[in-house]
Amino acid sequence: MEQGVSEEEIERVTARIEAMGFRAHAIPGSLRTAIGVTGNKVPLDPSEFEILPGVKMAIPVTQPYKLVSREVKHDDTQIEVAGRRIGAGRFAVIAGPCAVESLQQTLAVAHAVKASGAHFLRGGAFKPRTSPYSFQGLELEGLKILARAREETGLPVVTEALDTETLDMVAEYADVIQIGARNMQNFQLLKKAGRCRRPVLLKRGMSATLDELLMSAEYIASEGNYQIFLCERGVRTFSTHTRNTLDLSAVPAVKQQSHLPIIVDPSHGTGKRDKVAPLARAAVAVGADGIMIEVHDNPDRALSDGPQALLPDQFDRLMKEVRAIADLVGMGL
Amino acid sequence: MEQGVSEEEIERVTARIEAMGFRAHAIPGSLRTAIGVTGNKVPLDPSEFEILPGVKMAIPVTQPYKLVSREVKHDDTQIEVAGRRIGAGRFAVIAGPCAVESLQQTLAVAHAVKASGAHFLRGGAFKPRTSPYSFQGLELEGLKILARAREETGLPVVTEALDTETLDMVAEYADVIQIGARNMQNFQLLKKAGRCRRPVLLKRGMSATLDELLMSAEYIASEGNYQIFLCERGVRTFSTHTRNTLDLSAVPAVKQQSHLPIIVDPSHGTGKRDKVAPLARAAVAVGADGIMIEVHDNPDRALSDGPQALLPDQFDRLMKEVRAIADLVGMGL
Amino acid sequence: MEQGVSEEEIERVTARIEAMGFRAHAIPGSLRTAIGVTGNKVPLDPSEFEILPGVKMAIPVTQPYKLVSREVKHDDTQIEVAGRRIGAGRFAVIAGPCAVESLQQTLAVAHAVKASGAHFLRGGAFKPRTSPYSFQGLELEGLKILARAREETGLPVVTEALDTETLDMVAEYADVIQIGARNMQNFQLLKKAGRCRRPVLLKRGMSATLDELLMSAEYIASEGNYQIFLCERGVRTFSTHTRNTLDLSAVPAVKQQSHLPIIVDPSHGTGKRDKVAPLARAAVAVGADGIMIEVHDNPDRALSDGPQALLPDQFDRLMKEVRAIADLVGMGL
Amino acid sequence: MEQGVSEEEIERVTARIEAMGFRAHAIPGSLRTAIGVTGNKVPLDPSEFEILPGVKMAIPVTQPYKLVSREVKHDDTQIEVAGRRIGAGRFAVIAGPCAVESLQQTLAVAHAVKASGAHFLRGGAFKPRTSPYSFQGLELEGLKILARAREETGLPVVTEALDTETLDMVAEYADVIQIGARNMQNFQLLKKAGRCRRPVLLKRGMSATLDELLMSAEYIASEGNYQIFLCERGVRTFSTHTRNTLDLSAVPAVKQQSHLPIIVDPSHGTGKRDKVAPLARAAVAVGADGIMIEVHDNPDRALSDGPQALLPDQFDRLMKEVRAIADLVGMGL
Repeated sequence: MEQGVSEEEIERVTARIEAMGFRAHAIPGSLRTAIGVTGNKVPLDPSEFEILPGVKMAIPVTQPYKLVSREVKHDDTQIEVAGRRIGAGRFAVIAGPCAVESLQQTLAVAHAVKASGAHFLRGGAFKPRTSPYSFQGLELEGLKILARAREETGLPVVTEALDTETLDMVAEYADVIQIGARNMQNFQLLKKAGRCRRPVLLKRGMSATLDELLMSAEYIASEGNYQIFLCERGVRTFSTHTRNTLDLSAVPAVKQQSHLPIIVDPSHGTGKRDKVAPLARAAVAVGADGIMIEVHDNPDRALSDGPQALLPDQFDRLMKEVRAIADLVGMGL
Repeated sequence: MEQGVSEEEIERVTARIEAMGFRAHAIPGSLRTAIGVTGNKVPLDPSEFEILPGVKMAIPVTQPYKLVSREVKHDDTQIEVAGRRIGAGRFAVIAGPCAVESLQQTLAVAHAVKASGAHFLRGGAFKPRTSPYSFQGLELEGLKILARAREETGLPVVTEALDTETLDMVAEYADVIQIGARNMQNFQLLKKAGRCRRPVLLKRGMSATLDELLMSAEYIASEGNYQIFLCERGVRTFSTHTRNTLDLSAVPAVKQQSHLPIIVDPSHGTGKRDKVAPLARAAVAVGADGIMIEVHDNPDRALSDGPQALLPDQFDRLMKEVRAIADLVGMGL
Repeated sequence: MEQGVSEEEIERVTARIEAMGFRAHAIPGSLRTAIGVTGNKVPLDPSEFEILPGVKMAIPVTQPYKLVSREVKHDDTQIEVAGRRIGAGRFAVIAGPCAVESLQQTLAVAHAVKASGAHFLRGGAFKPRTSPYSFQGLELEGLKILARAREETGLPVVTEALDTETLDMVAEYADVIQIGARNMQNFQLLKKAGRCRRPVLLKRGMSATLDELLMSAEYIASEGNYQIFLCERGVRTFSTHTRNTLDLSAVPAVKQQSHLPIIVDPSHGTGKRDKVAPLARAAVAVGADGIMIEVHDNPDRALSDGPQALLPDQFDRLMKEVRAIADLVGMGL
Repeated sequence: MEQGVSEEEIERVTARIEAMGFRAHAIPGSLRTAIGVTGNKVPLDPSEFEILPGVKMAIPVTQPYKLVSREVKHDDTQIEVAGRRIGAGRFAVIAGPCAVESLQQTLAVAHAVKASGAHFLRGGAFKPRTSPYSFQGLELEGLKILARAREETGLPVVTEALDTETLDMVAEYADVIQIGARNMQNFQLLKKAGRCRRPVLLKRGMSATLDELLMSAEYIASEGNYQIFLCERGVRTFSTHTRNTLDLSAVPAVKQQSHLPIIVDPSHGTGKRDKVAPLARAAVAVGADGIMIEVHDNPDRALSDGPQALLPDQFDRLMKEVRAIADLVGMGL
């Protein structure tokens, strides 16, 4: 759209597009609003759209993903969650335990990471576990504990929704809904998250290409939810010295293709406590929009992924390094 | 259990186990019935169970999977679907189009593969697609077309259930419910399939280890459905000459660890028509319990995965080779 | 060249090509001789060559490899070693110990595999070992033992040359020079093997694409040695249930691109004794031109790779299966 | 050895070890000298060594590598090349063209990177090329050009030795001998580099585990050359958005196991110009001891790997970022 067009003009154009039998997605940017058109079975003629009032230009998108592509929207997307912004120059630190285990543990960790400067609290109430016999999370009770921790610390909550059955419940308590690596191509879940009004944190699958990751984000966006940020969390390779191989090149590569923010999870990306801080520093330096770090006050007793959790004082030291490097690469914390 | 114990004795033991706070899973074998015990948080003392009447031996299972392990049940599992048996010496050929596109196409392919000797008809009514803008399947209409093709040809139907929302609908029409590679760790779907009375075909995820595959089968079994067969369909590697790298060593490796049948899908495993027949022959020779082959009467017009579909006459030639090799390795078709 | 042209006409054409400043490679086929032209910096005009007497057609080769490409030579290449032919319908079984450990052990295994029907004796005199402190082979003494075993059994010898320093020594004793996976891109060694008059068995590198494998074969061919056969021996992936992931799709894929024979090594390809026979059967069924199998009379005491060696009686049973499947797929043993 | 023992005492102990039939490797550290013992076929009794005069402690090394292990030498190794130190807190920047193409090009790039603050000049005179028909380097002429560039700029030269035949020639001109990824397990080359008096830069193979990388370093060390630094340059995975997947976790993982310095090559590690600077920054942040960067004054005309070379002014900007981050993580440039 032209700069400075009114809401009404945008609505008029989207109405015209819908009347033509397509879906229209108005995606606001800093200078102008882009309107993505999806639902066509065959290529469309740009001139059909360029004659609409207020339309500056119609660009056919060559990528298989449309709404999440930089071709549609040139500016970096910034997401606001409970007053805290992520992306487009604002760096976010998400920290907390792998799993919510008890109120006491969650509050202890939440206060600790808050004190060190984290912006979001993470913690799993529903846990995807390889074995049906492993601890599967505290479920609703876990969500309530997270809400209580938010109340006490002011930190917005990021937590995973595992399936369509419990997505609404998670959305009721969470500020950001996480979709995990194993669910990156659970298309029904993606679509339901796309119809939900919460920002979504979408993790890259264990052997997903970036095109596949962006197509999965497109599933969410195509349902009308454009508040998506991506997460690199390591991919599966022959390498055995870490649990996964953290692919930091995904950060500049995603930024080239898409306007969405991308953060890095060095905890799952390495699976080993002593590798978390070095790779977290590297994630800041490579240009990520945030990091997600597992912190536990007693990792040896953690019910899930203890060996990769930082102790609160290790996290505190890391935050100092993160701040300094973020500053150097022009990111505000 | 001892050989020759009665149903009542088995029930008495399972009742005792349940009364102790665990879950009991009676798994009949050719000579004796095994009873899997799950739900314990800590290792149990075998002698607690060996004193129960009719119990021959209690074996602690060292694998993370229990019910699908050969430690629990030594004999190969054989699954019966609509009169056709798979596993334990009986080889099954599943063939049909990637996606159900129309009644005419489905019937044409179904009659062709039946004439060549296939035992099951495959075809997707719900398609997992990387892009939200790709053809997603005919859904309910597709299921009805499959049912009609079964009526006409007598071939039982194998078709994929994509999510918990539509699993019941699929189960109503399908003889075997397929769970695809992308859903191998969709635990909610696995559990729901475990509560359903249909045999389940579980495909290996794109970068799943065999332990993970067997743990996912365990999710199904732990809900009481032991009619599971596995499917190797290629894994993701650096190699680019095929779409995936078909890992035929998975067949003897699974058979060593588990009593479940395992089949091979060389169509997805290679993604290229001219590689399907050689790898199908290799799958028979390596000892698989079956193969799943995509066949299309007009692959160039296929709505999904055309380049990997065999033409009916190619499939017919393949069946002759499959029969000869199966015979050599002691499998009955 | 035209069918039925004389040696003189071929020589005249090659002389003309050399006079033009290029290299000419006359590669005889069953019906006609192809002459590969290399050494050009820029694309050449086919008509410059088509006017030469006896030339039927000049085809620009689009592949990065030329001499090993099917575009240059349409017929399968058959290699003759000491009276035994490999490729183009003739299946070869190469068997023997991983390493030559002693005269007694080598003779015992050689007699055993000969009795079971193997065509070639394998055995390493120079061993590439990850650790400088592991057994590195008997070297010259090992070569002499192999020669002695050939004398006693009549089996031609396949053995590895590790470096340019010892290649001539190996060539003096061996009938076929093996270049191992770690040396697939040791270009100096490839070139020296290309100047040697022995057939070369070139193994695929641990993470080599097929294009890279064929380019390495091209290095050998470009020095004038066209007696090359390739070997798939497993690639490195995330999978842990076998030592490597045997990629049997490489067989039809190589055959599509190249006229060279390709064999399969299921011993290194799986690294586990109980997987060797199933994957060997699969290799025959997929259309390989041969297999290479490690056999040891006392694997638990083997100085190298004991866990993957078959016992002589296991090898004998395997040979019966191999013969039957080879017969089915139209290969003569 | 005890702190403060004399050279004579060390020599006496090494002589005793040699007399016992083993090899002794004296490796000086900041506080004490360690003496590595290799060549034993069976585990040795530590007390046999602890009774030798001046010996403080004998530690059996559990890693398969000995001399490069932190168990043998606790302090970080620092290497000095022509007055410039690498490792143990000193960060090194190695920059220059992929291949030496001409005197003019090499001098232009060398002066540019020197002006921006690089410490070493890189450039290939012998190039490992997948195709026998690609540019293979200027060879001796290239070495002379590098020597001339060193003379003009004062930058020590890092260049690759491809084979044992030309290693001595390379060693005559180079300050550091590079062994490339394809040659990581060219054991003859490693051993010859171990007998040469030049520091060696050993690159990780395309699918090498860290244990294999350290074992290859051990090959060099076991011949008496302890001046080794390692290089992470990306590994081969399913990912296609970069040429290789740069595995930055290798840096902390190597440092945990070994006292050797490790640098990072983001040029080969990504293969794409716009990813080089972000990953170079990440390499500094993760704790690497240096980076190796390809710079070309006219990348579009480069004879090798143009798409990954930085322009001189891009390199200049990168150096400013590198300096700032190195400073933050406590490394001196």
